[in-house]
Amino acid sequence: VEAVGPEVRHFKPGNAVFYAGSIARPGTNSEYHLVDERIVGRKPGSLSDAEAAALPLTAITAWEMLFDRLDVKRPTPQGGDVILVIGGAGGVGSITIQLLRALTNLTVIATASRPETQDWVRNCGAHHVIDHRQPLAPQVEALGLGAPGFVFSTTQTAQHLADIVALIAPQGRFGLIDDPDELDAMPFKLKAVSLHWEMMFTRSLFGTPDMAEQGTLLNEVAALVDAGRICSTATDVAGKIDAATLRRVHARIESGSTRGKIVLEGF
Amino acid sequence: VEAVGPEVRHFKPGNAVFYAGSIARPGTNSEYHLVDERIVGRKPGSLSDAEAAALPLTAITAWEMLFDRLDVKRPTPQGGDVILVIGGAGGVGSITIQLLRALTNLTVIATASRPETQDWVRNCGAHHVIDHRQPLAPQVEALGLGAPGFVFSTTQTAQHLADIVALIAPQGRFGLIDDPDELDAMPFKLKAVSLHWEMMFTRSLFGTPDMAEQGTLLNEVAALVDAGRICSTATDVAGKIDAATLRRVHARIESGSTRGKIVLEGF
Repeated sequence: VEAVGPEVRHFKPGNAVFYAGSIARPGTNSEYHLVDERIVGRKPGSLSDAEAAALPLTAITAWEMLFDRLDVKRPTPQGGDVILVIGGAGGVGSITIQLLRALTNLTVIATASRPETQDWVRNCGAHHVIDHRQPLAPQVEALGLGAPGFVFSTTQTAQHLADIVALIAPQGRFGLIDDPDELDAMPFKLKAVSLHWEMMFTRSLFGTPDMAEQGTLLNEVAALVDAGRICSTATDVAGKIDAATLRRVHARIESGSTRGKIVLEGF
Repeated sequence: VEAVGPEVRHFKPGNAVFYAGSIARPGTNSEYHLVDERIVGRKPGSLSDAEAAALPLTAITAWEMLFDRLDVKRPTPQGGDVILVIGGAGGVGSITIQLLRALTNLTVIATASRPETQDWVRNCGAHHVIDHRQPLAPQVEALGLGAPGFVFSTTQTAQHLADIVALIAPQGRFGLIDDPDELDAMPFKLKAVSLHWEMMFTRSLFGTPDMAEQGTLLNEVAALVDAGRICSTATDVAGKIDAATLRRVHARIESGSTRGKIVLEGF
């Protein structure tokens, strides 16, 4: 923190913080940001700046999806102790699995397609790993756990939609975060499944009355990190923040084959 | 009840009951039905058979939507004390409004377009009535109640979709029961709104572990009726159950202008 406004209560210059900011303000490819203190948490003391920087956007997304949207601590009538995480090796998937293991008793099935990403999601805590390049429903059924009450799809939702409809428990809860051109909700009617969006910028964008929940959850994430119960999902510090590095790293992300989170550091 | 199987525990021949049955078994246009006791309730003693017959399908739909899907007793972060019911004068809308008034403290906005249906939804207990033939969002805003945390659309959802997206509170919960050819869920992402299907045949069709909740809620509906806290939504007893009467009544329902529920009685 370089400076604070007159109404800031929780931070002062010199504090080390982490946050994901607001999509309605200039973004985090710049050297200085203006951020509302309600969506800011204390940086985990046990992490470097780069390791900490990997966490807020994905941890907020995962936390809000699990606890505010899917409400995983409130069981579904059937299958409420099993969750499927599609795209388990990505930034959101990696921290989702860790938060599930640290904060719930749910059995976690995660998808990953390559040996190194399958190892990665197992290290994050997944109880079972299935391959999202193969049809998901028969693989889930073969695990013998029953139909999952919860499904969280972090990517390629449109491609997996028929499988999700087939494998989720009746009256289950389905969450997603990606951006298909269109997502038809009709197939979920027969099972009375609900569909939950998570969008980590909703609170800051609309200035909702519960905006400060993001600061609170970031402090809880920091405490879990410092207690050694979850770890940063940073897999690579790829260089300084400039146009050439950003272009190179975006190309890697667009390849769809990265694990966890790539971080840039310094100017 | 004419006869019971050896494992039936709660009913015996001679009991007067009401239920909506299973869509996977021969339907209620026949003189005798076979029904699982878990989805059966005691008929309200204060109602005629015809008046009682109007209730199960709509009351189960409304109850499950409000308390099991939208979970209206768990507030949304914003607008959680206001609900909009689209199509308030129909069978489901009429009993939804009554259950909301009997069992919650929510402020109820209902839609109805004609003077007689507007009177009807006010009699059901709606605090505010708006016209679904006009754009809904500006009418809701003009009420000065803030953005509703809950929206329950019973009909014409596709037509009202843009208005629902515009008027619902961020992080709100949206429920629907109708059958558009397609329903694109993407517009709800920015507000992180969840979408909840209610399908009253889901429990019986899939034999879910909580099937008996339908019997329980029907008994609670019967108790509310007998206590004078809600009333039957039957508006017309239109004749005996035969092909000609069914054809005539279906044509009236398809006109889209009926209030409450039309009942047929006897063979």
